Amino acid sequence: MARMLRVAAGQLGPIQLKDTRKQAVERLLALMRQAAAEGAKLIVFPELALTTFFPRWFMESQAEIDEYFEREMPGPETMPLFDEAKRLGIGFYLGYAELTVEEEKIRRYNAAVLVGADGKIAGKYRKVHLPGSEELRPALKWQQLEKRYFEYGNLGLPVFRAFGGIVGMAICNDRRWPETFRVMGLQGVELVTIGYNSAAHDPNGGDESEALRVFHSNLAAQAGAYQNATWVVAVAKAGIEDGAGLIGSSVIVDPNGRIVEQAKTKEDELLVHDCDLDLCKHGKENMFAFARHRRPQHYGIITAQAGITPPPEE
Amino acid sequence: MARMLRVAAGQLGPIQLKDTRKQAVERLLALMRQAAAEGAKLIVFPELALTTFFPRWFMESQAEIDEYFEREMPGPETMPLFDEAKRLGIGFYLGYAELTVEEEKIRRYNAAVLVGADGKIAGKYRKVHLPGSEELRPALKWQQLEKRYFEYGNLGLPVFRAFGGIVGMAICNDRRWPETFRVMGLQGVELVTIGYNSAAHDPNGGDESEALRVFHSNLAAQAGAYQNATWVVAVAKAGIEDGAGLIGSSVIVDPNGRIVEQAKTKEDELLVHDCDLDLCKHGKENMFAFARHRRPQHYGIITAQAGITPPPEE
Repeated sequence: MARMLRVAAGQLGPIQLKDTRKQAVERLLALMRQAAAEGAKLIVFPELALTTFFPRWFMESQAEIDEYFEREMPGPETMPLFDEAKRLGIGFYLGYAELTVEEEKIRRYNAAVLVGADGKIAGKYRKVHLPGSEELRPALKWQQLEKRYFEYGNLGLPVFRAFGGIVGMAICNDRRWPETFRVMGLQGVELVTIGYNSAAHDPNGGDESEALRVFHSNLAAQAGAYQNATWVVAVAKAGIEDGAGLIGSSVIVDPNGRIVEQAKTKEDELLVHDCDLDLCKHGKENMFAFARHRRPQHYGIITAQAGITPPPEE
Repeated sequence: MARMLRVAAGQLGPIQLKDTRKQAVERLLALMRQAAAEGAKLIVFPELALTTFFPRWFMESQAEIDEYFEREMPGPETMPLFDEAKRLGIGFYLGYAELTVEEEKIRRYNAAVLVGADGKIAGKYRKVHLPGSEELRPALKWQQLEKRYFEYGNLGLPVFRAFGGIVGMAICNDRRWPETFRVMGLQGVELVTIGYNSAAHDPNGGDESEALRVFHSNLAAQAGAYQNATWVVAVAKAGIEDGAGLIGSSVIVDPNGRIVEQAKTKEDELLVHDCDLDLCKHGKENMFAFARHRRPQHYGIITAQAGITPPPEE
């Protein structure tokens, strides 16, 4: 048996501060049309795919910050993506900054939507693992202020029945946490979609090289795929953006953890792969047959505490 | 600052059915002496390091099965390891099959001890993630009957203050489960010791190649190291044992997930590396600063259920 889904990764090169949303959407549309022409049924775009990665900048004016946020999805500037998806019969994952009102309060999330080939939203996700700091770190050339500009996602780590399988969504830093993949794995996920903006420099002031950061990015995607017997599509915004480097290395990873497609550039670039969702079965039914082999009675501290409790001093 | 620990991986080639415990201990002693001569303070040996990997055989006689088990640790045949460790001032990890009496009942575990440079047991572990089946699978050439011959470990996934750091223990299949590493990571682990016997063929009758199984083994160790900012020493029993192949690829992995030492043979082979335990700090204090970045409120199903709960059918 085979359950084929042709999937595309729509990597973006940099979006500069001066670039407009209209320009970004035009680039996304070009990638979408190319993907549809190659027969893909789903294209995954990066995190925060409509603007520059603004959390690298320290801003104090909320009005200035809010210029990077979407008040509607779709809104006037993103509607062409939904219309074109419907016209072409292709779905997409799009990362964006969401400004919404919940319980009469303005909320801001690092969000993504999964849109079906009918142009309707099939799933929504808000980033759970916000990296970086709330406060300015003056020693750093480039900030990472997601904890300042966003609230933590409040939609859990959901999966959706879509595209003939079970599809999960994560955003950037989420992929470094095995809990992200495992929570989806425990819901039977067969394809994890991830958009990211990962700095080419060490965001914590250490000496991690760009090559090491690419290795970390791939390692996290590959381990998540293997250990949950799922396909993974992880898609970068890449290149030099506002003078700051972003890694590329968008990848499609099979349920054995092997990279089957990998971006060669740091520009707008399309990867396409025929993902047989039934390839997830061997792992899910054998090595990672969770019901037979997991031992949750020994995992308690994973959910009981956030931080480290070291053993007593001798 | 540096907190150096010179660690050795003492990979074993095959131990055949006809080989005696005395022969196995002689080989372990030779590796231990070589490690001590090279200045190592700890040597990690494989899982079930005293006999062939007997769960590949279906046996019905409990007396026959029990011949593979140790009733004491140390016992008469393993005491030379403890004596020599003390004489040389080197600690060791040893995997073995444990037969013991708890609550007036005979219990059998896939176990490991961590022995200090004083020749005393510093930590003990019993394998939590037993792979394979309880029953004979007639279609398979080689069985994997750990679930038949052992009970599930009942000592949790502990870590120990030893060798100037925080040391954890896991056994073989444990390493494929991110929960194993995370439970130790949440206890501040800086060095995870793992012994394994991993088949070179697909133990579930699929078509996984030996190369793929080596890749899986390394991927699991590397992801566990990176995502918990810990050193990992994973040590194989390797080669053709009783006609069945075992992968080698013993590795020492740094806290960035990079393989820094890797076995080149499927024979008795020693790897030695200077592990700076302070290299764990950058990851533990930044990217994987658990207290700041983990979101356990979204991880509930990891401990609430063992198996998969798929989303409702549409």
